[in-house]
Amino acid sequence: MFVLGRLLSGGACKRGVSLLRTRVAAPEVKTSVKRHSSGPGQRMDIRGIYPPIATPFTQKELVDYHKLEENLNKYSKIPFRGFVVQGSNGEYAYLTSEERVEVVRRVRQAVPKDKLVIAGSGCESSMATMQMSDQMAQAGVDAVLVVTPCFYRGRMDSRALIHHYTQVADACPVPVILYNVPGNTSLDLPVEAVVTLSQHPNIVGLKDSGGDITRIALIIHKTQNQDFQVLAGSAGFLLAAYSVGAVGGICALANILGQQVCQLEQLCVSGQWEKAKALQCRLIEPNAAVTRKFGIAALKQAMDWFGYHGGNCRSPLCPLTESETKQLQSDFTSNGWL
Amino acid sequence: MFVLGRLLSGGACKRGVSLLRTRVAAPEVKTSVKRHSSGPGQRMDIRGIYPPIATPFTQKELVDYHKLEENLNKYSKIPFRGFVVQGSNGEYAYLTSEERVEVVRRVRQAVPKDKLVIAGSGCESSMATMQMSDQMAQAGVDAVLVVTPCFYRGRMDSRALIHHYTQVADACPVPVILYNVPGNTSLDLPVEAVVTLSQHPNIVGLKDSGGDITRIALIIHKTQNQDFQVLAGSAGFLLAAYSVGAVGGICALANILGQQVCQLEQLCVSGQWEKAKALQCRLIEPNAAVTRKFGIAALKQAMDWFGYHGGNCRSPLCPLTESETKQLQSDFTSNGWL
Amino acid sequence: MFVLGRLLSGGACKRGVSLLRTRVAAPEVKTSVKRHSSGPGQRMDIRGIYPPIATPFTQKELVDYHKLEENLNKYSKIPFRGFVVQGSNGEYAYLTSEERVEVVRRVRQAVPKDKLVIAGSGCESSMATMQMSDQMAQAGVDAVLVVTPCFYRGRMDSRALIHHYTQVADACPVPVILYNVPGNTSLDLPVEAVVTLSQHPNIVGLKDSGGDITRIALIIHKTQNQDFQVLAGSAGFLLAAYSVGAVGGICALANILGQQVCQLEQLCVSGQWEKAKALQCRLIEPNAAVTRKFGIAALKQAMDWFGYHGGNCRSPLCPLTESETKQLQSDFTSNGWL
Amino acid sequence: MFVLGRLLSGGACKRGVSLLRTRVAAPEVKTSVKRHSSGPGQRMDIRGIYPPIATPFTQKELVDYHKLEENLNKYSKIPFRGFVVQGSNGEYAYLTSEERVEVVRRVRQAVPKDKLVIAGSGCESSMATMQMSDQMAQAGVDAVLVVTPCFYRGRMDSRALIHHYTQVADACPVPVILYNVPGNTSLDLPVEAVVTLSQHPNIVGLKDSGGDITRIALIIHKTQNQDFQVLAGSAGFLLAAYSVGAVGGICALANILGQQVCQLEQLCVSGQWEKAKALQCRLIEPNAAVTRKFGIAALKQAMDWFGYHGGNCRSPLCPLTESETKQLQSDFTSNGWL
Repeated sequence: MFVLGRLLSGGACKRGVSLLRTRVAAPEVKTSVKRHSSGPGQRMDIRGIYPPIATPFTQKELVDYHKLEENLNKYSKIPFRGFVVQGSNGEYAYLTSEERVEVVRRVRQAVPKDKLVIAGSGCESSMATMQMSDQMAQAGVDAVLVVTPCFYRGRMDSRALIHHYTQVADACPVPVILYNVPGNTSLDLPVEAVVTLSQHPNIVGLKDSGGDITRIALIIHKTQNQDFQVLAGSAGFLLAAYSVGAVGGICALANILGQQVCQLEQLCVSGQWEKAKALQCRLIEPNAAVTRKFGIAALKQAMDWFGYHGGNCRSPLCPLTESETKQLQSDFTSNGWL
Repeated sequence: MFVLGRLLSGGACKRGVSLLRTRVAAPEVKTSVKRHSSGPGQRMDIRGIYPPIATPFTQKELVDYHKLEENLNKYSKIPFRGFVVQGSNGEYAYLTSEERVEVVRRVRQAVPKDKLVIAGSGCESSMATMQMSDQMAQAGVDAVLVVTPCFYRGRMDSRALIHHYTQVADACPVPVILYNVPGNTSLDLPVEAVVTLSQHPNIVGLKDSGGDITRIALIIHKTQNQDFQVLAGSAGFLLAAYSVGAVGGICALANILGQQVCQLEQLCVSGQWEKAKALQCRLIEPNAAVTRKFGIAALKQAMDWFGYHGGNCRSPLCPLTESETKQLQSDFTSNGWL
Repeated sequence: MFVLGRLLSGGACKRGVSLLRTRVAAPEVKTSVKRHSSGPGQRMDIRGIYPPIATPFTQKELVDYHKLEENLNKYSKIPFRGFVVQGSNGEYAYLTSEERVEVVRRVRQAVPKDKLVIAGSGCESSMATMQMSDQMAQAGVDAVLVVTPCFYRGRMDSRALIHHYTQVADACPVPVILYNVPGNTSLDLPVEAVVTLSQHPNIVGLKDSGGDITRIALIIHKTQNQDFQVLAGSAGFLLAAYSVGAVGGICALANILGQQVCQLEQLCVSGQWEKAKALQCRLIEPNAAVTRKFGIAALKQAMDWFGYHGGNCRSPLCPLTESETKQLQSDFTSNGWL
Repeated sequence: MFVLGRLLSGGACKRGVSLLRTRVAAPEVKTSVKRHSSGPGQRMDIRGIYPPIATPFTQKELVDYHKLEENLNKYSKIPFRGFVVQGSNGEYAYLTSEERVEVVRRVRQAVPKDKLVIAGSGCESSMATMQMSDQMAQAGVDAVLVVTPCFYRGRMDSRALIHHYTQVADACPVPVILYNVPGNTSLDLPVEAVVTLSQHPNIVGLKDSGGDITRIALIIHKTQNQDFQVLAGSAGFLLAAYSVGAVGGICALANILGQQVCQLEQLCVSGQWEKAKALQCRLIEPNAAVTRKFGIAALKQAMDWFGYHGGNCRSPLCPLTESETKQLQSDFTSNGWL
């Protein structure tokens, strides 16, 4: 059985208390991103905007930790709530287990203590996911983000996924965030599974990258008594997600237009919907270009344009073709960002 | 070539002028559903909520015009903008050409003059669609709703669809509304096709039933200079659609909970987003139950429960099983509607 | 209830008896395409190759009956078992009800009495399908081919489809052939539904265009006691279909390379598998080009090249682009057909 | 650049020479499974039937090497060409890198020298795949089977996949077999990529589990000058695959009904198509039950019934429910296997 004390003590969870916060007590319109804890029994507050950071590589495709840290330094001026390490955009599927942990460790060291570090710890087997989650907790992350296992997707029904996440959350020293990304997994974590899992005290929320706003609204509705937090998995539907009750976003585009994504967050939480709408609309094409349309190679190319270290991907991800690069550029220029 | 005068004159378009209105001049927050025209050269204003009305049948599966009129009478107390006849929920695919026109004619006669009547006139061929659109215009409708032809979906690319809709809109005596309903057609009208078609003076908007809110926002963004109006095709994402700039909805659920859907519209257009969110969330499961989950048989069953004439569908649509009926009921009761 | 006598008498079924034949008594390796009847109580024999004929149109998109007859005259030299009128390649979805019947009537008049004429009579509603089937029977067809209704595909489960086909087959004066074409309908007629329907005395077989050979083999296996005949819906998998027990094919490519498709049939039924394989392989790319890849416009373009009347399609089907035409040509030349 | 000598020498490839064989010289009808080499410059002959062996686990979900060896001993009486270790059915996605190599090493030790051992070495990144392939070669395998990387499937086009497989095949000390399994990867290796890759001297063939027989025939046709060998990835379409030129199969069902799958092979290669058809048909439902329908848990359950060690899967794969177990049993009994 899960023991709450576990969450609140132990080396891996030193910052645990300070991150706890009651969502209930939050003012309806936030005007500041400051968060603080307010006592035991409440879940970690994960509200806000996070870039799912890219992993820079050397020409030989080794992790370039120096460039990674330089990127993080540049991000420190942006009012992000924290950083997600090894979301899909971090090419985590291409990293070894050792690299996954090491990248997380370096990020935790590089970013200020008041920024959350959330690490993608999902693997295909429950056993490996538990081990990885534990290692990442030891590396100092505040929470882990656990993608749905998907290779045997034909059998990944509610029963299997509830079992998987329960095992993982029971064992994990830090809070768990569910991660639904059907574009990569060809699998949707069923709503009923999310609702069941939202009752687990160590599962604090969901990152949903599918973009089905009806589904997102339904999940928020059906978990409303659980202090369960939903984060939009893309800047493309961030405003819509806020409109139905999401509390933040983990947005690839924030690697490039971080300030603007945070501004969109502020417009949403402060109820300035018309301005939010205008800004949201200008972010859709750039966002699509660096995600669904051209993928991580485009994300990294655009990072280069905007002063970050993007660079090449690990193979088999290929560089953009010339024509793709032009389209990418056009998706930024036509919306006034380049 | 399209002649604007055609839109503004002629027997079929008697009410045309009174429906024209500039969207630009609209106050940002509407507090009343009253609309009025403001001059030539502007497109018909289609803002508001419409039920895509169901078609009641006798036990022998003939159209029951009497019950149809009784339903319309009951709907007259609800602040709908108008009625959509032969959307997907009207079982139009099961009606003969003659029935399609006759149902439209009866509805036009039965509803007050200040209510818009929009008729689904889409057929597979351009030729048939033009004929049907013309007949429906003769029957007095204010606009036609033209579904994407889909049987040869492998060839229904932007080129084909732009050609189709241009032909239809050129010939049609009343304004045309595009209709994207991938759940039925297994086809998405490409965004680029919508953007091109939005420049046609006789194409006034789009009903999008797909629920991809990023797509809807992008369409609104890219047609913002065209006075092009987007209607949500489902109550499931109505709030989200308003949040990104949609101006109304054609919602199956409005056949049952019409007052509530109109209330949601009012909360959205008056900027009461928190209340809107609470109401929206309670509508998602009932809406899913009468659409995607159990289909038109469920819509009609629920209509019976709420005092309308639902009744049986045309074969091959089957009545609900006992178990489905129970789930349907539960989706209404658990949200406080039954 | 279905009455067998109905099948064997009545004006619409004059040739019924002569077409009946026991499949059981057939020699395992046929060396001739001659068929004959062998008594009452047996189902109509539908073995062999059929082109699902294209519908020529005039420049104004009206049915060109003269060209249609000229095509049929040219086909008379090819050992087809018969002709399918208004399969998907006949653009039936673009014809009015009246045109559908008239085309069928003309074909029946034009082709020799010993050729089967099978007409696509499927509509979305059961009622319309029954009427259309009846009209086509009156026009003299030997059997009707009934596509799965699909617009409300979310509800077209086994229950609905069994009900639909049973109603239609009960009422139909001529034998019914099921028609599964997921490429157009986005729906697969469930195997269990086929097995149930195979027991209906007036349902004689299935045209399966999906190309899932495991499914086809399973259907043949599970209906082996029903004298139920399966026809491949495409030349692309004709050999494979014969290898698991199919008895013929309705193949778009037979509109162009009719002699060759019939030759492939002969190689298969006479057990010359190596030769069959060589021929089969050369047909795959031309077949894909005129079906899945470029559709009916390509079929008609290639018909023109091979001396038939192809011509334009009804709108919204567009002519091929120049680049598509070149690829089409290449798919024929690279396999030695042009 | 690839050096053929590399294939024919070096520690990892000791049995390389003895496995080389010209496919051209093979008698059209094999009556024995014996194979031998016939000189340099030819590709490894991989014809025949292989079970993609399951991985037994202890109750604690550790690899049970003892049970694995007992299974292999039982399989030694069956005329398999060899064994595939860590196909999808081996739960390879749930094994650590170390376990993957160790399982392969144990299998190589346990099975007779004249049996091929083919190991699944695919990982998401090219780098990891090269390392894994090398380690497996060191462990003594005859060839590696490389699944398409798929997590970033939106970017896994021909360009990326050709690059990936070329890198891997250039570096790999043993021959490479391409592995297409869209049921797990939601990705189809494009035919054009297969055709290009078939020209690589160290890529000897393809395992295709998709079951699209037209695609399989086309690949065989377009690679006919390359001595490129295609293996069916499932017993469900084994006969059909042979009918179009496949040379063997890697069939999950061979873990259970190995003798029968080998018998089907013999009937196909000796041209006894009618008997083959009868046997093939009885294998479809059991095969579907242990693959697509109920997955690896069913495969292992049936292994238990047939005297092998199946046992539990690694989590999150769940045991069958009672109802699933009954259906599984029925799929075997109704075809006369239990």
